[in-house]
Amino acid sequence: MKLDTVAIIGVGLIGGSIGLALRQRALARTVVGIGRTASRLRVAEESGAVSRVTTDVRQGVADAELIVVCTPVGHIADHVQQVSRVCRADALITDAGSTKGEICRALAVGLAGGGVFVGSHPLAGSEKSGPEFADPNLFEGCVTVVTAAETASERRVAQVESFWQSLGSRVLRMSPDEHDRAVAEISHLPHLLASALAAAADPQDLILAARGWQDTTRLAAGDVELWRQILSENRRHVLQSLDKFGKVLSKFRQALEGNDPAELVRLLQLGKSNRDSVAS
Amino acid sequence: MKLDTVAIIGVGLIGGSIGLALRQRALARTVVGIGRTASRLRVAEESGAVSRVTTDVRQGVADAELIVVCTPVGHIADHVQQVSRVCRADALITDAGSTKGEICRALAVGLAGGGVFVGSHPLAGSEKSGPEFADPNLFEGCVTVVTAAETASERRVAQVESFWQSLGSRVLRMSPDEHDRAVAEISHLPHLLASALAAAADPQDLILAARGWQDTTRLAAGDVELWRQILSENRRHVLQSLDKFGKVLSKFRQALEGNDPAELVRLLQLGKSNRDSVAS
Repeated sequence: MKLDTVAIIGVGLIGGSIGLALRQRALARTVVGIGRTASRLRVAEESGAVSRVTTDVRQGVADAELIVVCTPVGHIADHVQQVSRVCRADALITDAGSTKGEICRALAVGLAGGGVFVGSHPLAGSEKSGPEFADPNLFEGCVTVVTAAETASERRVAQVESFWQSLGSRVLRMSPDEHDRAVAEISHLPHLLASALAAAADPQDLILAARGWQDTTRLAAGDVELWRQILSENRRHVLQSLDKFGKVLSKFRQALEGNDPAELVRLLQLGKSNRDSVAS
Repeated sequence: MKLDTVAIIGVGLIGGSIGLALRQRALARTVVGIGRTASRLRVAEESGAVSRVTTDVRQGVADAELIVVCTPVGHIADHVQQVSRVCRADALITDAGSTKGEICRALAVGLAGGGVFVGSHPLAGSEKSGPEFADPNLFEGCVTVVTAAETASERRVAQVESFWQSLGSRVLRMSPDEHDRAVAEISHLPHLLASALAAAADPQDLILAARGWQDTTRLAAGDVELWRQILSENRRHVLQSLDKFGKVLSKFRQALEGNDPAELVRLLQLGKSNRDSVAS
C-alpha cells in the first residue's frame, strides 16, 4: 500500500517506529508527527521518523488519509474522537493500543465527525519507551491484531491489515473481547508477575541476580503509568488470567509441600513444552 | 592461581565452561573430563574444554590437586564422597551446585577418604544445558557464592575463592543456609514462576507470544530433571519465597479488584525500582 500523508499521534517507541518503517520503506510521501511535548517531537523529527511535526491536531491530520493514534491506552478513545472532528471525511483512523475492548466500545457509539475507526494492536515493543528507542524493523515478523468493528466496512478493515503487513507484520483478525482475553494471558499477566517478582525481592539479595532473574523480571522496568492504564483497562480479563495462573501455581506449591517429584516433573514438563513451542 | 591437574566431574554447560576457561586462560596444565556418557565427553574433548576424558573416577582424579563436581545437585554429595575415596590426600574438592544446605550438611559429617570439600555456586548458566553450549566467558563478571564449611581451613576456602576469581568471577562468602534462602528468592522462585506461567498458557494463544512472554518464561525451557532436583532440595526456602511473593501478588490482585490506580502505581513502581537497580 502506498500512501500520500500519514499522521501519527504520539511519537514514542511505537509511533516513532511506525514513522521510521514508513519512511525507510518509502510507503508514504509525508509522515506528520503530532504530540504535546516539543522535545519528543524534535527527537522524532531528527531521527527521520517523521517529515514534519506539530502540536496542533487539526493542522496535523488535515491532509492525512491514514491517522495512527499511538498514545497510552487510557487516552486513545478521546484522541480518536478529537481526530474525527477535524480529519478528512474519508480518513482511516487506527491505533496501537494494548487493549481493545474499552476503546472499541467507546467508539462503537459513533465518531464525532469524519473518518472510520478500525482498532489495531501490534504485539511489538519492549520495556523501553520514548522515540529514542524507535526501530524501523520493530514490526518485522511481529503479529498485529486487527479488531473489526461493526461500523467499519470490510474494505476499510482490509486497508488497515494491509498497512501493518506493509510494515512487515503478520495480521490476525479478532474481536476486541477475544483480543483482550488472549493478551491478558500472554502479555498483561506476564507483566504483572514480572512486577510482583521484582517488587518481592529484598534489595540486599539483588547482588545475586543473574540472567534468570533479569529475564523473568525484565518487563517490570516498563513505563509505570502506561502499564497502570493497560492493567486497569483490561482488569477483568487480567483477573481471570491470574485465577487460572493461581491454580497452576497452587499445584506447584502442593508438589513442593508434599515433596512429590513425579508431580513436579509433570508440571515443569508442561511449562517446558509450551515454552519450547515458542522462539527463544 | 596456576594449577597442574584439574578434574571436572560432569562436562555439561558449567563443567565444560570451567574447562574452556581454564584452558584458554592457561590456568591448568591438564584438565581431565570425567563423565558417564561417552558422547558428551567426546563433545567436551573436541571443543577443547578438557585435555583428556575418562569414565573412571579413580583414574580421572588420581593426579588432580583440584576436583570440581559439576553434576546435578541431587548427586553432588555422593560424587564428592566417591572422589574422596580415590583422590590425593591433599586434594581440594568443590562443586557448582545451585543448592548448598543439603550438600554441606551431608558432607559435614566427614569425607570418606582424602581431600577437603568447600562448596561453590557460580550464578551463571542459562536455560540451555550440555557441553555444546559451554562458554569460556560464562563466569566473566558473574557472582560465585563460596560456602565455608567448618571442616575447611581458611587457607582452603581462600584457594577455592581464588580459583573462581581466576575464571573472572566475583566471589561472595555465605553460609549454606543463607545462600539457599537468597537463591530461593533470586533464582529458584523465578524459575518456578516462569514454569507456572508457561504451563498456564493455552497453546492456542501462543501465536500472540512476543518478547514479553518470551523473556518472562525463558527459564521454563530449562532441563526438567535438573530443576526438579534443585526445587526439591531447596523446597523449604522456595516455599518461604513463594509465600512472600504471594503476599505481593495479593496486593496487585486487590488493587485490580478495587480498581485502585494509586495502589497499582505504587506496586508497579516498587517493582520498577528493584528492576532498574539491576543490569538489563
